[in-house]
Amino acid sequence: MSAKPDRSDSLTEQKAAMTPDTRIVDVLSKVTTATITTILLKKGLRNVWLRGTQPLRSGQPRCVGRAFTMRFIPTREDLATPESWSSPKSTRAAIEAMPEGCIAVVDAMGVVDAGIFGDILCARMVKKGVVALITDGVVRDVAGVLATRLPVWCQGAAAPPAIARLTFVNWQEPIACAGVAVLPDDVIVGDDDGAVLIPAGLVDEVMELGTGAVRRLDHERSRGRCSVAGSLSTQRREQSAL
Amino acid sequence: MSAKPDRSDSLTEQKAAMTPDTRIVDVLSKVTTATITTILLKKGLRNVWLRGTQPLRSGQPRCVGRAFTMRFIPTREDLATPESWSSPKSTRAAIEAMPEGCIAVVDAMGVVDAGIFGDILCARMVKKGVVALITDGVVRDVAGVLATRLPVWCQGAAAPPAIARLTFVNWQEPIACAGVAVLPDDVIVGDDDGAVLIPAGLVDEVMELGTGAVRRLDHERSRGRCSVAGSLSTQRREQSAL
Amino acid sequence: MSAKPDRSDSLTEQKAAMTPDTRIVDVLSKVTTATITTILLKKGLRNVWLRGTQPLRSGQPRCVGRAFTMRFIPTREDLATPESWSSPKSTRAAIEAMPEGCIAVVDAMGVVDAGIFGDILCARMVKKGVVALITDGVVRDVAGVLATRLPVWCQGAAAPPAIARLTFVNWQEPIACAGVAVLPDDVIVGDDDGAVLIPAGLVDEVMELGTGAVRRLDHERSRGRCSVAGSLSTQRREQSAL
Amino acid sequence: MSAKPDRSDSLTEQKAAMTPDTRIVDVLSKVTTATITTILLKKGLRNVWLRGTQPLRSGQPRCVGRAFTMRFIPTREDLATPESWSSPKSTRAAIEAMPEGCIAVVDAMGVVDAGIFGDILCARMVKKGVVALITDGVVRDVAGVLATRLPVWCQGAAAPPAIARLTFVNWQEPIACAGVAVLPDDVIVGDDDGAVLIPAGLVDEVMELGTGAVRRLDHERSRGRCSVAGSLSTQRREQSAL
Amino acid sequence: MSAKPDRSDSLTEQKAAMTPDTRIVDVLSKVTTATITTILLKKGLRNVWLRGTQPLRSGQPRCVGRAFTMRFIPTREDLATPESWSSPKSTRAAIEAMPEGCIAVVDAMGVVDAGIFGDILCARMVKKGVVALITDGVVRDVAGVLATRLPVWCQGAAAPPAIARLTFVNWQEPIACAGVAVLPDDVIVGDDDGAVLIPAGLVDEVMELGTGAVRRLDHERSRGRCSVAGSLSTQRREQSAL
Amino acid sequence: MSAKPDRSDSLTEQKAAMTPDTRIVDVLSKVTTATITTILLKKGLRNVWLRGTQPLRSGQPRCVGRAFTMRFIPTREDLATPESWSSPKSTRAAIEAMPEGCIAVVDAMGVVDAGIFGDILCARMVKKGVVALITDGVVRDVAGVLATRLPVWCQGAAAPPAIARLTFVNWQEPIACAGVAVLPDDVIVGDDDGAVLIPAGLVDEVMELGTGAVRRLDHERSRGRCSVAGSLSTQRREQSAL
Repeated sequence: MSAKPDRSDSLTEQKAAMTPDTRIVDVLSKVTTATITTILLKKGLRNVWLRGTQPLRSGQPRCVGRAFTMRFIPTREDLATPESWSSPKSTRAAIEAMPEGCIAVVDAMGVVDAGIFGDILCARMVKKGVVALITDGVVRDVAGVLATRLPVWCQGAAAPPAIARLTFVNWQEPIACAGVAVLPDDVIVGDDDGAVLIPAGLVDEVMELGTGAVRRLDHERSRGRCSVAGSLSTQRREQSAL
Repeated sequence: MSAKPDRSDSLTEQKAAMTPDTRIVDVLSKVTTATITTILLKKGLRNVWLRGTQPLRSGQPRCVGRAFTMRFIPTREDLATPESWSSPKSTRAAIEAMPEGCIAVVDAMGVVDAGIFGDILCARMVKKGVVALITDGVVRDVAGVLATRLPVWCQGAAAPPAIARLTFVNWQEPIACAGVAVLPDDVIVGDDDGAVLIPAGLVDEVMELGTGAVRRLDHERSRGRCSVAGSLSTQRREQSAL
Repeated sequence: MSAKPDRSDSLTEQKAAMTPDTRIVDVLSKVTTATITTILLKKGLRNVWLRGTQPLRSGQPRCVGRAFTMRFIPTREDLATPESWSSPKSTRAAIEAMPEGCIAVVDAMGVVDAGIFGDILCARMVKKGVVALITDGVVRDVAGVLATRLPVWCQGAAAPPAIARLTFVNWQEPIACAGVAVLPDDVIVGDDDGAVLIPAGLVDEVMELGTGAVRRLDHERSRGRCSVAGSLSTQRREQSAL
Repeated sequence: MSAKPDRSDSLTEQKAAMTPDTRIVDVLSKVTTATITTILLKKGLRNVWLRGTQPLRSGQPRCVGRAFTMRFIPTREDLATPESWSSPKSTRAAIEAMPEGCIAVVDAMGVVDAGIFGDILCARMVKKGVVALITDGVVRDVAGVLATRLPVWCQGAAAPPAIARLTFVNWQEPIACAGVAVLPDDVIVGDDDGAVLIPAGLVDEVMELGTGAVRRLDHERSRGRCSVAGSLSTQRREQSAL
Repeated sequence: MSAKPDRSDSLTEQKAAMTPDTRIVDVLSKVTTATITTILLKKGLRNVWLRGTQPLRSGQPRCVGRAFTMRFIPTREDLATPESWSSPKSTRAAIEAMPEGCIAVVDAMGVVDAGIFGDILCARMVKKGVVALITDGVVRDVAGVLATRLPVWCQGAAAPPAIARLTFVNWQEPIACAGVAVLPDDVIVGDDDGAVLIPAGLVDEVMELGTGAVRRLDHERSRGRCSVAGSLSTQRREQSAL
Repeated sequence: MSAKPDRSDSLTEQKAAMTPDTRIVDVLSKVTTATITTILLKKGLRNVWLRGTQPLRSGQPRCVGRAFTMRFIPTREDLATPESWSSPKSTRAAIEAMPEGCIAVVDAMGVVDAGIFGDILCARMVKKGVVALITDGVVRDVAGVLATRLPVWCQGAAAPPAIARLTFVNWQEPIACAGVAVLPDDVIVGDDDGAVLIPAGLVDEVMELGTGAVRRLDHERSRGRCSVAGSLSTQRREQSAL
């Protein structure tokens, strides 16, 4: 794709003048994941939609934040020893390392019969200022998790503890989550449709295009007419067709 | 099956004296999909239940209408050109062709990581008098779609636009939807359980049998007793066993 | 596993002094399935979580009861004769055989396109004092089933009658349900996370350990602090880590 | 389906004059499973093809025999005790109960990561005169199993022993195998395409129709011309179209 | 993607000077599907690999030809009447319409428990000069199909006739096959890895690039050294990395 | 499980007197994966069988070696830049780091529509003395890979290059492969059934038990009698029952 070298150039520049995260949150909180995926598709990015992870509670707020990644592999009985609980590589230690404003993105390999976190760890994340939890796995003690008010995108709930199926490996590594490559500090946006990743180097561009798209869509809707097939100019049709 | 030649005979007659659609809607709105699938099973029709498509909103009204079919195939980057947006074979053109009172039935090949329609096209369908949207795929911008109040049966929501995964081919062709063969003008009924197809040629018969079944079930329930194993006659047992 | 001979010894003793079911219900109604699966995992029992069966209605009460098992196999047109409806091996006969306080656990082989029971049979179960229905299949006429107020754990709803896909075989046999071996009289507990099986011979032990766990978790939560990574003793960490 | 009462009548008569099994084997060994499934479909039997079980060795002979059924449920650690090995309900005891000429049909619930039998038990089946093994699971020690020359239809091989995933329940019960209801004494035919079930009561009819179909197909092929679309009579077209 | 308008321009030119099919077959028969998918990926075409369809016989020749498309939808008992066999839209009529040198590409919706064609129709395709059969379904009477020597890419074999699961709709329409959009006259190449589609408008470009790639790979291999990490120039590394 | 603390003690000792790898290969080459999984199950290790990865060529030799791990995550268009090909984290660099006698174990996340390696990289592995390649993905250019004679366990073949679906992350990390946690230096054994992992700390114990098991099984088979149900002692029955 011819655009790539340019993109990687601008990537360097963008890093120099990185937008403060508060502005990122402020701007992207107004853009739907539908608009963001459309923008990224136009930039040639097709594999940024997290497949199959959904809001645990309908109506939870749109969430925006930098990804803090965590990685699990399958369980193995000889690794799940009492010693492992005091290992420096525990999920608890990972949570303590989470910066305020991040979104925890957890590679649970799509496992749906053991919950990665319950109410205690979710409450701890809320206290640390974590914005949301996103995983391709499930949570446990879902009533307790809902009570913490932590916004969660996941595949549902299951009671068994993580170690019944999973071994925690590490945090802030590149991971796979719900079919998408997630790197630490990529930006994640979640809403009622699900969750999308914006590569760190493309955040500024997405913000700019997203703001424009929202303005155009508002205008289209406010005209109160949906004669979409008839009178729309090619440019606006392209926008909404996507 | 011995019944087939007769059925095809009566099919011709029925077409001659086709029941007006208003009466179809009126009668079938009172019959559950549970009763309709039972009736069709007794007629030897086993593959009329749309598998895996569910009401987007619980409590949305039972919907009845003639199928208006739409067909997608997988996306291919060389077909998704700007020119394709002004193609006469667009989803927008299809929507403009929809008659009032129809149900849009969309073969999205079960794709769940790209939404076939968002709020703008759903609003347009409402304006056109389309009764419902039924698909084996998903919608996008689910909050917006729910706001249009269009009853939808689907597999959920995903933000990416259709063209991220799908190419629109045509409308009013025979299609596969959720494992069922759907022909234009077959009748679709959707309720809280999901959606069922009634072949166009069997609609009158289903209406008649359905009305009788509702009466018998009401009677059974109103007797306020469920001693089902004990005293029911063979005929009524057969009815409810199904 | 070294623990097994002991367990099987204690199993015999436990049978002698079997805890009355009312006490079982009383105690286990206060223990989450998250805690029960943790306890069973520590006892070496990894395959007791019913995979993929979920509460039909969010907020339905936690349910505890002895399993009353039912088994289906696939449908076969030559077996689904009118005679089969008066067979002594019908689902209706099974329901009549259910003792008060049991939980019906139904092996529907994970079939999701035919409902095992509708409102009439669910109403009958309520009348018989059945505590809940748990299946790896689905129900039909979901609006009617919800109206009976029978707590149900299942995979959702589908309108077609059971015989469209399933043949009923027998009751009170060992069955597979949602990936778990269920024997008559094993204890089942269902809550918002899903459902777990407690082998009959381990019920007393789980009750004792469960009561202790609830007390410790309450204490941990009431201390109002979640500095979980910092000050927790090894023992409490182990408890909650699970 | 109107044919059913008749069929069930003729079923009784057929039992009176049951064809000796040697003749069944003799006749059906000359009929492909393609022809048998076509005949059964015409009789209204759609669910008799075992889905996903395939010949372990290409070129193994067509096999015909009465079904001897075996049933597994999932493993549970508290059931897999040393005592269970001397249980009267072992797979070994089942094999000892197999009559000469039968086909062992094993419900392994589609489990593919534990092998139900290895070389020792397969060798024992050969010695007992068992014609073939058919399962929706897999075998273990596939090299050893192949060496026994027992014809096997299965999903492949896996090394772990059955008890890693499965608990044996019983034999000669109605079972599900590869999506089909199998009753003891139904007839099974396996060839390169896979395996099909003929209900016990329909065996004579299938034999008769099968012999005729083979004759017609031979004739059609021997005419050395495949101008199928052109000159075939409706009757012959129907035959081969199926 | 910036390349698209150019590509669509060159598409028009290419059509003017369309390469004769004999040269296409001659050139592409020497290029692996591995090289072709690499070339198409570099052109931005990611969705051209047919997923899950495999050579029926290992060692069958590499096949190249224009796609002749066929489309099935699910079966429906009221459509599968005796009249349907003499319908002008039969698979037999489709086969008679196939031009010499084409590859039949059949959308069977991934159905694996009914075979789309058996030995008679495959023999007819051989006689018509059809190069190969490619489907996301399966064939029936696999021994007979293999005897016809028609190269087939599919998912395996199943005995039941197509009408047990499928209804034939039409030929030479745009279809989905194995996850790929196939248009009549696209070029298909199949080898031991599986099958790939080359959009009609890109065939010349792929031929040219493919020829060059084969020359470079031959050179690299003939140098008899695989010190790939050490001394390769960036250009050659890129080539083989893909 | 009570055995765990002991095991972890003996683990430390074993490391002190680590068996040379040549002896491991020598001993374990004579033990089937069926026997090894049985031994590990008795030690409480249930999750060591790699699910779904199979020998690419039937009859390839049993392979034994230490795991050299490699990890992929999904592709992302902005990461697949020309620069990435000269990244120090390439699959080529990983191969150069492989020690003689290792088995490459590759986490390809089960992706089956892009091949992780083709003939050039497999030939390089052969030259480096790599014993085998094991992955939950597929290879590309399968004819070329087979020609290198590298023993491969995988899910089959697909032509598209790895970067069409995957991004390489790193080597010698803990990974998931085919549902099993694999750590660098664990021992892998592959044969016709598939592949099994032996945790590094349990290798000596498995070798000892494996040698004994082979002796007993040989004896049982050489007695030329399979009266398994009759006369076997409890101990030998237990052995073979597993």
